[in-house]
Amino acid sequence: MRRALELAHRGPMGPNPRVGCVLLDRDGAVLGEGWHRGAGTPHAEVAALADARERGADVHGATAVVTLEPCDHTGRTGPCSTVLLAAGIARVVVSVEDPNPVAAGGARRLREAGVDVLTGVLADEGLAALGAWLPAVRHGRPFVTLKTATTLDGRIAAVDGTSRWITSDVARRHAHALRADVGAIVVGTGTALTDDPSLTARTEDGSLVEHQPLRVVVGHRDVPAGSRLRGPGGELVTVRTHDPAQVLAVLHEREVRHVLVEGGPTLAAAFLAAGLVDEVHAYVAPVLLGAGPAAVGDLGITTITQALRLEPSTVVPLGPDVLVVATVRNAPADEAPAPAARPSTEEEH
Amino acid sequence: MRRALELAHRGPMGPNPRVGCVLLDRDGAVLGEGWHRGAGTPHAEVAALADARERGADVHGATAVVTLEPCDHTGRTGPCSTVLLAAGIARVVVSVEDPNPVAAGGARRLREAGVDVLTGVLADEGLAALGAWLPAVRHGRPFVTLKTATTLDGRIAAVDGTSRWITSDVARRHAHALRADVGAIVVGTGTALTDDPSLTARTEDGSLVEHQPLRVVVGHRDVPAGSRLRGPGGELVTVRTHDPAQVLAVLHEREVRHVLVEGGPTLAAAFLAAGLVDEVHAYVAPVLLGAGPAAVGDLGITTITQALRLEPSTVVPLGPDVLVVATVRNAPADEAPAPAARPSTEEEH
Ligand SMILES: NC(=O)c1ccc[n+]([C@@H]2O[C@H](COP(=O)([O-])OP(=O)(O)OC[C@H]3O[C@@H](n4cnc5c(N)ncnc54)[C@H](OP(=O)(O)O)[C@@H]3O)[C@@H](O)[C@H]2O)c1
Ligand SMILES: NC(=O)c1ccc[n+]([C@@H]2O[C@H](COP(=O)([O-])OP(=O)(O)OC[C@H]3O[C@@H](n4cnc5c(N)ncnc54)[C@H](OP(=O)(O)O)[C@@H]3O)[C@@H](O)[C@H]2O)c1
Repeated sequence: MRRALELAHRGPMGPNPRVGCVLLDRDGAVLGEGWHRGAGTPHAEVAALADARERGADVHGATAVVTLEPCDHTGRTGPCSTVLLAAGIARVVVSVEDPNPVAAGGARRLREAGVDVLTGVLADEGLAALGAWLPAVRHGRPFVTLKTATTLDGRIAAVDGTSRWITSDVARRHAHALRADVGAIVVGTGTALTDDPSLTARTEDGSLVEHQPLRVVVGHRDVPAGSRLRGPGGELVTVRTHDPAQVLAVLHEREVRHVLVEGGPTLAAAFLAAGLVDEVHAYVAPVLLGAGPAAVGDLGITTITQALRLEPSTVVPLGPDVLVVATVRNAPADEAPAPAARPSTEEEH
Repeated sequence: MRRALELAHRGPMGPNPRVGCVLLDRDGAVLGEGWHRGAGTPHAEVAALADARERGADVHGATAVVTLEPCDHTGRTGPCSTVLLAAGIARVVVSVEDPNPVAAGGARRLREAGVDVLTGVLADEGLAALGAWLPAVRHGRPFVTLKTATTLDGRIAAVDGTSRWITSDVARRHAHALRADVGAIVVGTGTALTDDPSLTARTEDGSLVEHQPLRVVVGHRDVPAGSRLRGPGGELVTVRTHDPAQVLAVLHEREVRHVLVEGGPTLAAAFLAAGLVDEVHAYVAPVLLGAGPAAVGDLGITTITQALRLEPSTVVPLGPDVLVVATVRNAPADEAPAPAARPSTEEEH
């Protein structure tokens, strides 16, 4: 299973789950390996069977070790349960059971056909490998990470609106790494117009990484011609609404599984107030401003007992700054998307 | 010297330096040990000589290892240089040279009398043991630590003024430990009137620790009869001014070497704007409020390049919260008072 998990992590973050599969003979020798390379490509089990075939291995009576329960529906690829049965697999070892009501049932189907099925092996690590795909599938909307970058006194900009830079380049590079992992970056029109951000995922040398998330601007105002958002980078998507749920519906429809909300305060408050933030990444810099906009706009909270209390998961010093990662307990989707930060959320809640 | 430093740490934090002394014979065997127990008590060297006498040891020709250069003035106790000479000490090993112009000169006096004097041994640790006494003596005012306790979005209270509790009991206990080490806790009348704080140093079970810092309220309004500030705890000192420098002058006069400014935002901003904060202890809780007063009031900063950038020294996770300790680079006094957090500041700047 450790090997299957390693293979899973080779898959891209994206709309589809990261899954790995290893085929073993009775003595534990590897017959074939495969992982899911993304939407429209063969599932891990199918890839592993193809690998075994290429190696000329006989998989009859073999064991399939797979990080996610084999699917039982005909999507863009056939049901893996059927494929495994046809290949004569005798035993299937699974990490995580499929939570997707459409695709689930593979284990049952295999058992009914006489295959020996074991589930829940290294389930925490299996969950972590799946990333944001799992909560997204469970809750029918993308997993939402809210990012803030503030001074020690909670400011995101000075009085005149300038905010470059509050956090250090170490922290900004860290934030860029997350951008490369998500399906979409979301800001309000206020940020789009004030900061003229490019919202791209870049490497250390400033060049664009291969996978660029969608760039999403929420609000009624237009993104002017000549904005950096119209320059090189991911596709620009404008959603002319003030309703965060509608934004997520549009993105879910586009198979985005993980959304990064990067502000500003008005949009951040709207997502928080709607209970549509799963996780907060707060970068805090050792800087004081004494004035200027705060990270989060009005939430309608007037007294301390109503405060939105988060569940901290990690504190990461980043150069002079510190990153606090915390989950929102009362939001509907509360699973971990970030394998590095938290191998298993189930245990933490 | 390590043993002398251990002894130094037995001394109380307070107006006087923490100093330890070990007397050794030619073979390195311990003849006597002593440390400074606080204002008005014998200096470490005198205590070590007394200890040796009690043990019946002959200190003639011995080596004195001492964490601070022996003083050369007659204060409340006699000059240690003279005492060491009279005892026939042949060699003196010193960690930190005395920065106090009034008391310095002990090493020179000893050398002139033919004693072999070595200085600068484990100087970083020697500095740390001295705590806030050193910067206070150098700059003629107490060392100032500003404490804040905020949400992730920089709020110190909700809109209605309620603020109990933003940080966890783990963080609050940590903050109490610092209170027990300082000479005075300072707040503005706003905090005194809104929160009715007691400003005492308490142990885990809520009882008062033996040493209670002065409780200082700054501003023109009165602290009402019946306020907790008039209840059990340190002496209440009201300073009817808006000038932070005047507050520090009053406290320096009273031999306070380390001041903890606990807010509110108006007073915090006044100290910061006057360049009279040496160090910030920012407790940040994973809580969002979206509204309410910020930790620091207006500093007159309008654009990001004017931001007050601090030099972070430690990040300490405390239960769900995180403590960021940072020094203010441009303040006149920039040495470390907190041994645990930073053994030596000289190196960090
Ligand atoms: N340091 C940082 O990390 C950081 C990050 C982001 C932003 N910022 C700063 O934030 C400031 C911009 O603040 P902002 O609050 O104006 O930005 P914003 O939240 O990005 O945009 C606000 C705008 O979004 C639209 N909107 C979308 N959903 C809404 C809702 N539910 N309710 C109300 N309006 C909604 C409205 O515009 P329409 O009228 O177009 O509908 C609204 O004016 C800038 O100074 C920027 O520098 C800093
Ligand atoms: N969460 C926390 O850690 C924390 C800590 C402390 C306070 N707080 C909150 O802070 C709020 C109180 O805020 P605040 O700003 O009013 O409190 P403050 O800073 O304690 O007090 C302000 C008052 O101090 C006097 N003052 C002293 N020096 C001054 C100067 N240089 N300039 C102007 N005034 C000066 C003035 O009163 P006079 O008119 O009497 O001269 C002024 O109104 C409360 O809601 C409290 O709960 C929270």
